[in-house]
Amino acid sequence: MTDAQARAERVARFMSERDQFARHLGIELLALRPGYSRAQLALRPHMLNGLGMPHGAVIFALADFAFAAAGNSHGQTAVALSMDVHFLTSPAPDACLACEAIEVRCGRRTALYRMTVTDAAGQPVAELHGLAYRKDEQFLEEPE
Amino acid sequence: MTDAQARAERVARFMSERDQFARHLGIELLALRPGYSRAQLALRPHMLNGLGMPHGAVIFALADFAFAAAGNSHGQTAVALSMDVHFLTSPAPDACLACEAIEVRCGRRTALYRMTVTDAAGQPVAELHGLAYRKDEQFLEEPE
Amino acid sequence: MTDAQARAERVARFMSERDQFARHLGIELLALRPGYSRAQLALRPHMLNGLGMPHGAVIFALADFAFAAAGNSHGQTAVALSMDVHFLTSPAPDACLACEAIEVRCGRRTALYRMTVTDAAGQPVAELHGLAYRKDEQFLEEPE
Amino acid sequence: MTDAQARAERVARFMSERDQFARHLGIELLALRPGYSRAQLALRPHMLNGLGMPHGAVIFALADFAFAAAGNSHGQTAVALSMDVHFLTSPAPDACLACEAIEVRCGRRTALYRMTVTDAAGQPVAELHGLAYRKDEQFLEEPE
Repeated sequence: MTDAQARAERVARFMSERDQFARHLGIELLALRPGYSRAQLALRPHMLNGLGMPHGAVIFALADFAFAAAGNSHGQTAVALSMDVHFLTSPAPDACLACEAIEVRCGRRTALYRMTVTDAAGQPVAELHGLAYRKDEQFLEEPE
Repeated sequence: MTDAQARAERVARFMSERDQFARHLGIELLALRPGYSRAQLALRPHMLNGLGMPHGAVIFALADFAFAAAGNSHGQTAVALSMDVHFLTSPAPDACLACEAIEVRCGRRTALYRMTVTDAAGQPVAELHGLAYRKDEQFLEEPE
Repeated sequence: MTDAQARAERVARFMSERDQFARHLGIELLALRPGYSRAQLALRPHMLNGLGMPHGAVIFALADFAFAAAGNSHGQTAVALSMDVHFLTSPAPDACLACEAIEVRCGRRTALYRMTVTDAAGQPVAELHGLAYRKDEQFLEEPE
Repeated sequence: MTDAQARAERVARFMSERDQFARHLGIELLALRPGYSRAQLALRPHMLNGLGMPHGAVIFALADFAFAAAGNSHGQTAVALSMDVHFLTSPAPDACLACEAIEVRCGRRTALYRMTVTDAAGQPVAELHGLAYRKDEQFLEEPE
């Protein structure tokens, strides 16, 4: 395993343990590599909006977590500057959603990620961009 | 009270009761008028992200609810096509956030809203745009 | 050649002839298929911004044209609702830029396209989303 | 006149002279203050799109110039990271468009601006956000 991948796996454990809201929703990080992540979420009844459809903010939360994982996968602290989301189709109220985040470009100070959310049948649910600001800090402590 | 405002108040009750995810988070609708809404949310410990800051997806959820309320305030069903969010400052982990949604333009088929999220001191937290598609349906039943 | 491709080629001729601003800038449509386009633009000295770099609005114009071509490729009139652009790297002042537009999803009323702008070396310059509203009209007259 | 306003006026002269593409289109900078700008553009026949309407890229170019002027108004070099544009109504083909840019927030490294484009009757044409990255450089030479 490369150093970069070993670091990504420590980031994965860190994010899975520390992201309280992702844990609260039941979001799971399935894969994390440098500049790439995959996460999933099983929709539940309290995740519906006023019209009885899966809430846009829940779909966003899954993509935001995948974005944060990919953005922090290099071990350097990254925070979100902006995101845009396009809702494509409304999934079933009990769908299991998956999200992939890929790194479009990683510069010294900013990095862009593209996220795609799909349901279990591969139907596209949403597509997002996330722009991250990369701080000087490394958020992982060094391994013993 | 005008008919439009009476309708907005029925919409307000509908959205407050039916939006399961907003209820789950503790989002409250403070005001709804045709093309305008105001909502608030008190942040709690399970709403933090992996870096210990209030989760972007929680800030988004508040704005999304304000958007949905304003977008549906005319009684005609409106669904989100897209949203973009700019994160401005990170609020305190226990901040009480407020969000205003104003209607920038309401066309026959699409409508644009601008949302601003602030903390209790009026510090700007996020600014968003939301684009809604207006269906032919009226989601409120006629009053008796 | 399929009917859909024949229609796309008539759309290509129409767009290439009628888009006055694209012609003015020297934008060329290289390929148009249903839901896909490729266009290019050779930057010239009057296309620089105040800091001496290729103007963001010129990069946008290329992507906007590719978006319009792909969005109208089915023969049904499509107009832009919104676009977002992320600038990735600044190309050389005399670069030749290429843009591909792909259809992410085409619904009955709205359709989403993703555009990528690159320079001749394949270096990424910008990535965009464009959301189109599809009118009831067909803008092409029927062929004789 | 304050130092900040004197600097903004030197920036205004700089941008008006150096932005080749804005000059080429006939965009005029009407006002520049720290964090605020106003610009205008008279549409001409070569600024139409394939459907005979004012080109979205021309509307974008006006807003992009207003964004650049406001973003650089402090004398510190600012470059665009991203922009999003919402098209509200299509102006007349010979309309004179005005754009205001206001600073939503100016941080140490990034700054957000909101632009509104209107026609001469005050009809809203487009609303945009622009996110700028602030470099360490000052692009103005010191006055003698």
